[in-house]
Amino acid sequence: MSTGKQAGLDERRILAGNVRRLRQERALSQEALAEVCGLHRTYIGSVERAERNVSLSTIATLAKALNVSVPELLTQKGTVRGKR
Amino acid sequence: MSTGKQAGLDERRILAGNVRRLRQERALSQEALAEVCGLHRTYIGSVERAERNVSLSTIATLAKALNVSVPELLTQKGTVRGKR
Repeated sequence: MSTGKQAGLDERRILAGNVRRLRQERALSQEALAEVCGLHRTYIGSVERAERNVSLSTIATLAKALNVSVPELLTQKGTVRGKR
Repeated sequence: MSTGKQAGLDERRILAGNVRRLRQERALSQEALAEVCGLHRTYIGSVERAERNVSLSTIATLAKALNVSVPELLTQKGTVRGKR
């Protein structure tokens, strides 16, 4: 009955890949990104390993720091249409 | 230094509006949507009032139940391009 089991794993991996890619494109270390976000460096690492079930406010913080929209940060690369 | 303060409030409101709109378009009660998602009815209500800092896995569960993508569920209506 529930659609909840395993929900979010794909999305977690998409978020993980996008955070890592965008951070590297911006030549930011995990520590530098963490500092901007007010998060701990190890937290960024765990997000990039898709280990975290991140909250919407943290996703918004990451998106802002990486200068992309929240939907963009959750969209698999290759399906994003232009504009950054 | 932190960009974290108040982060996610806009996104929470976008999610809230989209969940309510899509649920109503599908003629689902809060209780029916909650049942499909394996969540409590009052939880759906609090999401629709933008009171919740929802986790990515719950966003994914809601998106699946409402038959939209996660990025679409987090995109302000009017900026979504076609396809549902």
